[in-house]
Amino acid sequence: MKYSQLLGKATKDKSKDTKFKSHYYLTKGGFIRESTAGRYYFLPLGWRVHQKIQQVIKEEMDKAGAQEMITPVLHPLELWQETNRTNSAGFELTTLKDRRGAKFALGGTAEEMFVDLVRKFQLSYKDLPFNVYQFSTKFRDELRARGGLLRVREFTMKDAYSFHASEDDFKLEYEVMAKTYTKIFDRLGLKTLKVDADNGYIGGEYCHEFQVECELGEGRFFVSKDESYIAHEDVAEFNLEAVNPNEEVKEFEIIDQPEWVQTMDHNIKHYGKDKRHFLKNVVYKTDQGQIIIVSIRGDLDVNPIKLQHLLNKQPNLTVYQLEGATNEDLAKIGTKTGYVHSWGHEGATYVADDSLKTVTNFTGGQKEETTDSFNVNYGRDFKHDIEGDTAMAQDGFLAPDGKSKLIEKRGIEVGNIFQLGLHYTKLMAGATFTDQDGQEKPYYMGCYGIGLGRTMASIIEKHHDDRGIVWPEAVAPFQAQLISLAGAEEKAEDVYNQLIKAGVEVLWDNREGSAGVKFADADLIGNPVRLVVSPRTKDQIEWKKRTSKETELLDLETVIKKLTD
Amino acid sequence: MKYSQLLGKATKDKSKDTKFKSHYYLTKGGFIRESTAGRYYFLPLGWRVHQKIQQVIKEEMDKAGAQEMITPVLHPLELWQETNRTNSAGFELTTLKDRRGAKFALGGTAEEMFVDLVRKFQLSYKDLPFNVYQFSTKFRDELRARGGLLRVREFTMKDAYSFHASEDDFKLEYEVMAKTYTKIFDRLGLKTLKVDADNGYIGGEYCHEFQVECELGEGRFFVSKDESYIAHEDVAEFNLEAVNPNEEVKEFEIIDQPEWVQTMDHNIKHYGKDKRHFLKNVVYKTDQGQIIIVSIRGDLDVNPIKLQHLLNKQPNLTVYQLEGATNEDLAKIGTKTGYVHSWGHEGATYVADDSLKTVTNFTGGQKEETTDSFNVNYGRDFKHDIEGDTAMAQDGFLAPDGKSKLIEKRGIEVGNIFQLGLHYTKLMAGATFTDQDGQEKPYYMGCYGIGLGRTMASIIEKHHDDRGIVWPEAVAPFQAQLISLAGAEEKAEDVYNQLIKAGVEVLWDNREGSAGVKFADADLIGNPVRLVVSPRTKDQIEWKKRTSKETELLDLETVIKKLTD
Repeated sequence: MKYSQLLGKATKDKSKDTKFKSHYYLTKGGFIRESTAGRYYFLPLGWRVHQKIQQVIKEEMDKAGAQEMITPVLHPLELWQETNRTNSAGFELTTLKDRRGAKFALGGTAEEMFVDLVRKFQLSYKDLPFNVYQFSTKFRDELRARGGLLRVREFTMKDAYSFHASEDDFKLEYEVMAKTYTKIFDRLGLKTLKVDADNGYIGGEYCHEFQVECELGEGRFFVSKDESYIAHEDVAEFNLEAVNPNEEVKEFEIIDQPEWVQTMDHNIKHYGKDKRHFLKNVVYKTDQGQIIIVSIRGDLDVNPIKLQHLLNKQPNLTVYQLEGATNEDLAKIGTKTGYVHSWGHEGATYVADDSLKTVTNFTGGQKEETTDSFNVNYGRDFKHDIEGDTAMAQDGFLAPDGKSKLIEKRGIEVGNIFQLGLHYTKLMAGATFTDQDGQEKPYYMGCYGIGLGRTMASIIEKHHDDRGIVWPEAVAPFQAQLISLAGAEEKAEDVYNQLIKAGVEVLWDNREGSAGVKFADADLIGNPVRLVVSPRTKDQIEWKKRTSKETELLDLETVIKKLTD
Repeated sequence: MKYSQLLGKATKDKSKDTKFKSHYYLTKGGFIRESTAGRYYFLPLGWRVHQKIQQVIKEEMDKAGAQEMITPVLHPLELWQETNRTNSAGFELTTLKDRRGAKFALGGTAEEMFVDLVRKFQLSYKDLPFNVYQFSTKFRDELRARGGLLRVREFTMKDAYSFHASEDDFKLEYEVMAKTYTKIFDRLGLKTLKVDADNGYIGGEYCHEFQVECELGEGRFFVSKDESYIAHEDVAEFNLEAVNPNEEVKEFEIIDQPEWVQTMDHNIKHYGKDKRHFLKNVVYKTDQGQIIIVSIRGDLDVNPIKLQHLLNKQPNLTVYQLEGATNEDLAKIGTKTGYVHSWGHEGATYVADDSLKTVTNFTGGQKEETTDSFNVNYGRDFKHDIEGDTAMAQDGFLAPDGKSKLIEKRGIEVGNIFQLGLHYTKLMAGATFTDQDGQEKPYYMGCYGIGLGRTMASIIEKHHDDRGIVWPEAVAPFQAQLISLAGAEEKAEDVYNQLIKAGVEVLWDNREGSAGVKFADADLIGNPVRLVVSPRTKDQIEWKKRTSKETELLDLETVIKKLTD
């Protein structure tokens, strides 16, 4: 490819959001261009990289026995209604009507579409298992797009769906996919951590995210020292040690308290105890309008994902969304901010976090203007029907196995694998196969996603320097960038033609202009090898790797040999 | 690939619309499955074919110097407003709003998106020309989907857009693309005719369709004997000979006419003359509500596309759509069906077709209940400001060069190439480059499309027999279909593994079941070679081409050699 004809050359334009190097270099290097916020053109250079990533994923998915196919982009809305996901999709679903009034959703994920397809066939256990996947455009109506390709409203996803006769059979595939993912990301130059995570709007019982460690990443997770435990903040568990197990249980009191004692900091100052000794109450509202009060140890924060799961385990409770309670909500149960009691508000549903069992003689729980409760003991002075772990992990907390402390990390989620179990096939009528015993049974399912654009951005976050991108060979847009300096145009043309003939992917910067600009652009674009042809190099070619400062003069034959071996 | 695990096996389901063999075999063979009308899943078998078609197109586009990239699926609606295509897109544009209220169109074609991209750069003549293309999902809100993949509401299109400094430079690319298209379709096993066609909603001045001859096709076009003239019915021209040049011009009369004379057939019967001697008036209404009366020779039909172009050439007329006038419309200009006059209706715009000049002494033009006009001569008795060719060609009419008669053909349009000229770049502000003289000039453009699904269906329309599909090698889902009969499973597994190892694309029908079913399914699916391993074939393999009835027994080595050479 001649650089002069390439659409999307290196530009002086600077991205507004230069926090992420991937965003900055992709824009400046002519790989992508924004259409509207969160929707990108992939220019020819960027699309070459995207296609190479796609090819690596395809090869590994095929090796693992998965079958590529494609679903329509517009999903009949009634399928999403069948699984109640028009309420719970987690991302805002974009819907539309066609000219005949038929309603569709723009695909954000495709569980329903694949189940609907599979139930159109009359399959038996003999047809199982299979894993089908596609590369297709996904739509997420994100409130805020950010970080270039890191959080967008439209992107290519590889999404795979596996169908099984049994949970055991599914588990085999789950492991195969986990290994396949690690292999894929390895080949793409990304070390990933397999992070226990929340299934969220996808449904099912467990899942794992593949995170690329990155300080600026949106994902927060906790890792034990030996990496045997890695869990997303949404689900991270930890070992709660008793705070004061030897303290004698004292008598419950209502004590006077100065009016200035309002906040946790005031409590600490006034009572001379650390946060852990105080009762804290956090109030939420469900999408159904129920008020939820969580009582928790003063040093802990409520983890709303854990809370939601705990609530959904209760009979007669289905919570799609939780949000913080407003002043109005508090007024409805007869209280206000700072004066929520750990018991007694009628109309509220109380939840006791497990941490309440780790402290003897809490302070707090029944604050009024000038009084509060003292020596409060959970189980003796109050007790709630709903009990469980609702707390957010923190850096330095003890790992669940008790052997090391948890380390907080941040990362970019590039892939995920989900157990779906019978979630979809029980909700969608007729999603069954005939088993060996002649019975109709629902398919046991899993699903497996990789975001291609985000993977591309992550590669750059991990592979760049001050001058630009340093592409791993597997995904570089070209193997080599050929630079011809003034006076060597003819020779360069010959070198270019011979490289092309030998099957080398080469980008020839054939522009008129300064050597400095060409060298800088080559570094910015980041192809693995830079070749320079100038009057000074005579019959030879200057060879330089993007990762090295060394140059060497080689003859064309050697250059071709090195690039085609 | 083992057939037992393939999603989408041959089925007994019959498509409702079996008029098209492609629809029937694709559905029955497990290549595609309908989601909702006009929206299809491509199952793994079908997707393999689709990808092979895509690869052939990509190779030829790249060879021609075009650059692959991708645009977002959601197009900002304001871009379509800039070019007035929200009115004139020709297909119903599907629009939607995101959660922030931003409006988008689902891409049906992407001229605006590419022009918007290109104008974001400050390009000069040095960057030109370039041709960028994408494979992307296109949406057409068709009133009626039909024929399986032949007319759908969602499909993959290869659309390319070229940008030039001048018309001359564009013309070179137009020729390159025409040749590239012929090459692509040749490789796919399709003989195409390059048909002069109407630009329609795309804009620009001329274009060509690539049609695959097919009696059931929707496209109708006319071909001269030597194929030097090939034109779509929308634009087909022909030579009009004078009907009665030697007849003396007679005096205009109003004559009595029996009340039963109402239709053309009545006229012929009553006057003993053929259709050509009668004046016919056809009435249309524009999208702006204007009434248009076309006066035309009695044997001819009005071609509304030609009419629309003629109208749009008039000052102060812009017609996006024409439809037949209703009784209500006729009432507004004081007339009714069968009594439209060739002159004199106030409020109507008259158009005279060129055919009026080929007849001396017309009958008709001023019909009342019991009278009509006689010996009417255009130019003498009436004349309209708007004159031109508005007539539909007919089989047997003289070709424009006068050397042969036109032959009517039908076909399937699989691709098209368009001159766009300055149409988009003049409407979209800032779509300019800096020319050698330092002036900002609008890009001169062309665009080039291929519908992949329709191409796939067309291949089957041309390559099938009574038993199923006969895929050309270039696009067959697999090179060979291996059938193992009872008792030869182990040997088949060995053959299968060795074929895979040798890089042969093979589908192994490893199901339990009858030989008859397996043979029938192999014919239906249509892979080029059938291999049978049975106890009877001993150490050998039965080889049969899908195109032949002959079988032969070969050893594995020979089979591999034949399949990998």
